[in-house]
Amino acid sequence: MKKGCYDRYSEERLKNAINVKSCIREAMGNYLRNNGFTEISPVIISPETDPLHHSTGKAGFEYYKGRYQLTKSMILHKQISLLALDKVFVFSPNVRLEPVELADTGKHLVEFTQLDLEVAGATRDDILTIVEELVTHVLNHVKDKCKEELDYFDRELNIPKPPFEKIKYHHAYNKYGRIFEEVLSHEKQQPFWIIDFPSDEREFYDREDPSRPGILMDMDLIYPEGFGEALSGGEREFDPKRIVGRMNEQELELEEFKLYLEFAEKGLPSSAGFGIGLERMTRFVCGLNDIKDTCLFPKMPGTIGL
Amino acid sequence: MKKGCYDRYSEERLKNAINVKSCIREAMGNYLRNNGFTEISPVIISPETDPLHHSTGKAGFEYYKGRYQLTKSMILHKQISLLALDKVFVFSPNVRLEPVELADTGKHLVEFTQLDLEVAGATRDDILTIVEELVTHVLNHVKDKCKEELDYFDRELNIPKPPFEKIKYHHAYNKYGRIFEEVLSHEKQQPFWIIDFPSDEREFYDREDPSRPGILMDMDLIYPEGFGEALSGGEREFDPKRIVGRMNEQELELEEFKLYLEFAEKGLPSSAGFGIGLERMTRFVCGLNDIKDTCLFPKMPGTIGL
Repeated sequence: MKKGCYDRYSEERLKNAINVKSCIREAMGNYLRNNGFTEISPVIISPETDPLHHSTGKAGFEYYKGRYQLTKSMILHKQISLLALDKVFVFSPNVRLEPVELADTGKHLVEFTQLDLEVAGATRDDILTIVEELVTHVLNHVKDKCKEELDYFDRELNIPKPPFEKIKYHHAYNKYGRIFEEVLSHEKQQPFWIIDFPSDEREFYDREDPSRPGILMDMDLIYPEGFGEALSGGEREFDPKRIVGRMNEQELELEEFKLYLEFAEKGLPSSAGFGIGLERMTRFVCGLNDIKDTCLFPKMPGTIGL
Repeated sequence: MKKGCYDRYSEERLKNAINVKSCIREAMGNYLRNNGFTEISPVIISPETDPLHHSTGKAGFEYYKGRYQLTKSMILHKQISLLALDKVFVFSPNVRLEPVELADTGKHLVEFTQLDLEVAGATRDDILTIVEELVTHVLNHVKDKCKEELDYFDRELNIPKPPFEKIKYHHAYNKYGRIFEEVLSHEKQQPFWIIDFPSDEREFYDREDPSRPGILMDMDLIYPEGFGEALSGGEREFDPKRIVGRMNEQELELEEFKLYLEFAEKGLPSSAGFGIGLERMTRFVCGLNDIKDTCLFPKMPGTIGL
């Protein structure tokens, strides 16, 4: 065991961050229930999961005559859940085998939990409003319940005022280039939206605007003060022809989404939603540099942790 | 896709069971927070997990120079968490590769969620009291909030009265043989405890009574009306010599618990706790035969499910 590994469990720093994370969960869950959402169970293993076409590796194992993958996000399952329930949320543990290059960003974990939410029939604007109210509620709740913890971190939490500023992807990109998120995150004083990502930057399930080909009805929420990305979300593709078209554009193997595509053929509801990382939110709320400090058992890219 | 697989999502049956499960989670989480517990994050992957020395297969995958296993239960991590916090709980998704023989019991899933809880310095009696109050609270909450759902299932929920009856393992075994749990579960009208399991029936981490070698300070809670096991728990071994002794008795490879044993050498607190399955509780509350009906995405032994 590395020196300090045992001792970190008695540090006030870790204890306070875990208390704040627990408080964030409480505020999220109760707020959503009070607003008509049903909590569903996480899916940890499935033959089909979010492809995440960036550099994340695949984790999986054989079982009887098939193969399970570990959930990278519950997007496909959230869409199917809406066949049963109109408004769902889940605290969804995700496993993403990130490359070792991401070990020191302070923002990446191989295992993390996101609050994942989806609403049948919703537009992007509906979701922006839900997020703004939810985030404001959570920050108020933490400010009220975690006074000692925030004092410990010497953190003054400013409660942002909805509606948050919206910045179009192509404006941000034209002005700052690829590092726009980082520049803007440092510049801004409260959370803000990046909207309208180009379709080749995102997954197949984010819905292309019918009136603006190549532009998605999606969004990221970015924390201020350099804390970077808070959440990703958007309206979803639900028409099977469009889903297959987007999968082909991204050169995905349709066979890997066989069951999902059968559901789409029979009919998925239109929807919109998002996923917001609990560890990144805790990092922002506590003002921490290293996301590791928000976890009892951090799993860092490139190493095996308990 | 099998016939009916799409249609089941529009059935009232599934929707109502999921609503009840959501309500159970709400009641558990809020009750525990109000009683001084901190919610911790699930651990999905770790190099070390509960060995579960019965017939459950191992799920895992390689990552860089090591190997991750999927969590079968968070027992080892719960004990370590108590170095930071005195009272913890977690909604912990577990993956257990059960053999196909368990496919039709109506009670077994390959993936399920348990409320897992641990208290530093607690005795078994402390935990019996916590469980009795928690279960009573949850049933009252469901009765109050899920009237429509219980009506749909034509289910009259009787609120049990603590303290629940305690039956010693050897009494039950001598009277009914190996099937004592099933017989007693059918016979009883409210939940009851089986206590004092023999040490070769259980895992290494359940604490042997110092004054009664071979007998554990552990317990199962059993539902009435034939619904069977609700939870398992007990006091824990925390002395490294005793842990190693128990591991050797069970012919476990110490190398597979290398990091855990290093924590034990440096010092783990004494503790007691339990894990209670949400799907089995939902099955009991709704009076369902098949645990599959409590899941949007059931994973059954011997097959690959979405």
